[in-house]
Amino acid sequence: MKPHFQPDTRPVAVRPIILTGDRTTGPLHIGHYLGSLRNRVILQDTHDQFVLLADAQALTDNIKNPDKVADNVLEVTLDYLAAGIDPEKTTICLQSALPALPELTMLYLNLVTVSRLERNPTIKEEIRARGFERDIPAGFLCYPIAQAADITAFRATVVPVGEDQLPMIEQTNEIVRRVNRSADREVLPEAEALLSEFGRLPGIDGKAKMSKSLGNAISLSASASEIRKAVQMMYTDPDHLRVSDPGKIEGNVVFTYLSAFDPDQEALAELKAHYQRGGLGDMVLKERLNGILQDVIGPMRERRHAFARDMDSVRDIIRAGTSRARVVTETTLGEVRKAFRLFQL
Amino acid sequence: MKPHFQPDTRPVAVRPIILTGDRTTGPLHIGHYLGSLRNRVILQDTHDQFVLLADAQALTDNIKNPDKVADNVLEVTLDYLAAGIDPEKTTICLQSALPALPELTMLYLNLVTVSRLERNPTIKEEIRARGFERDIPAGFLCYPIAQAADITAFRATVVPVGEDQLPMIEQTNEIVRRVNRSADREVLPEAEALLSEFGRLPGIDGKAKMSKSLGNAISLSASASEIRKAVQMMYTDPDHLRVSDPGKIEGNVVFTYLSAFDPDQEALAELKAHYQRGGLGDMVLKERLNGILQDVIGPMRERRHAFARDMDSVRDIIRAGTSRARVVTETTLGEVRKAFRLFQL
Repeated sequence: MKPHFQPDTRPVAVRPIILTGDRTTGPLHIGHYLGSLRNRVILQDTHDQFVLLADAQALTDNIKNPDKVADNVLEVTLDYLAAGIDPEKTTICLQSALPALPELTMLYLNLVTVSRLERNPTIKEEIRARGFERDIPAGFLCYPIAQAADITAFRATVVPVGEDQLPMIEQTNEIVRRVNRSADREVLPEAEALLSEFGRLPGIDGKAKMSKSLGNAISLSASASEIRKAVQMMYTDPDHLRVSDPGKIEGNVVFTYLSAFDPDQEALAELKAHYQRGGLGDMVLKERLNGILQDVIGPMRERRHAFARDMDSVRDIIRAGTSRARVVTETTLGEVRKAFRLFQL
Repeated sequence: MKPHFQPDTRPVAVRPIILTGDRTTGPLHIGHYLGSLRNRVILQDTHDQFVLLADAQALTDNIKNPDKVADNVLEVTLDYLAAGIDPEKTTICLQSALPALPELTMLYLNLVTVSRLERNPTIKEEIRARGFERDIPAGFLCYPIAQAADITAFRATVVPVGEDQLPMIEQTNEIVRRVNRSADREVLPEAEALLSEFGRLPGIDGKAKMSKSLGNAISLSASASEIRKAVQMMYTDPDHLRVSDPGKIEGNVVFTYLSAFDPDQEALAELKAHYQRGGLGDMVLKERLNGILQDVIGPMRERRHAFARDMDSVRDIIRAGTSRARVVTETTLGEVRKAFRLFQL
């Protein structure tokens, strides 16, 4: 495979570097597509994009179930390829196969205090959500530093995140400034958050979090009948009993999905008004949404099947991307080692 | 340089593996010699001995002064060679040049909780001693895990430590058992502490801690006149004013040093009795100690000068040792990665 970047034709200044990725803990779903994959497909034309299969990070809270993490590396990669991430344009790489990342993490661990980590609002919230209390694995407490290692290793200046992850970017830039101060020159660039246009897509049951384990997700590999069934089950307005009744838009999952995916937003605005007046049935809307989702997921499913027929070449894509990523991350590590005057053998 | 171990002639079971090392924060002194170097010179004939130049660990509390850490890598190596550590028998290697160590550390971080680390008595004590309070660098809190990575990476079963470091061995073996349980077979051996025969040698002023920065150390590169001067300044019994007075042995640094280094312990026992009766002057004892220390340090100083004349070959010794260590540690990392089912590219 031809490397997608060539220093002579693509100066760094022209193409900003973007780092994104996913923990490999399960196949991706339509929420991932809306929140990030769709954007990555667009951004790969204007950015040097690295996508990290974050298996090492996934282990920070899955060490007792490591098979799940390894088994999903290929699944997530297939989802990437299915969604239209093009390995000729985007570097897909495996986190645990990049030794520069733990090396950077260990150096950065010296720059951040334990109390600073404990104050990190994202960590605080996730510790609460996972019920860790005082039994937080040290790796979990340290993961904002590992993320800073990821971001800086690729010299990423653009990092797509949700609102809740802004403290991670802040932590990263604190480290960047410490490294640059130690080197007395700009070794690492600061990163900027790219907030996703859409918030989190709710589950088909209306719950805020969509996940395979909750059974409320539409996976990117869903069959036509699975999509149809999911849309049929979708939560709407429980008080909208007869077609003639006025219906509510807010909290109505069908409208949330239509707002996210309907290519004809003008027509959608009219449907919303009609629904609120009364006289528009849920079935009509669900039929419309089903058609749209089939159009979104259908081609992905086909691409997924095509790639899945030759898993060796999928592995090759990860191998090639990881090789490229190794060069980039080792170069950064060399610079950071110099900043901290590490002894050169 | 010929590698000192050859799998066909030296089965692992015959030669136990020993890991020791020093933080590269300053030249070594006679206290290091008594507490560890002297023993290493003996152990290298019966063990596969690895000695780690622990520059990465030194950074955990020296990140604001990294030059000190790098500058002392060659100094400490010269001290090793001067003390009689033979690079044909002992593998001298540079911690920061072994990427398997941070990789193992990051994996192990997932196995240990933050509260378990905070309960570590050594860490507790060192946090207090360094005045870190709540501003402990995360790297410092995590360093028992980094030490577990060091010990297990070399598959060391013998680890020379002071009494105060026993919790480190305990922490290491907890991790070993977790890894073996995850693999469902013995991937890593448990380690045993080798307690040093001698406690800590006090400074020449009688303070418990000997260190270059306190100005109370006798360095292994001290000149003949520096040794003489240090012995002359040595704290004895402040109430022993006249030769005829009875003198105290306890807390008398000259006797502490004589107990540690005098090759004729029978004669020393008589001198002690004489001193306690009265009639034995400090100067006689200091003259005796001076002669002994000159005999200990003189040959080291000469060997040091000989090695220092060819610093390229000293660097080569570190390079060769680090290459050997890389093979060993990468092999262990591969096994541990399998234990946690990491995806194999």
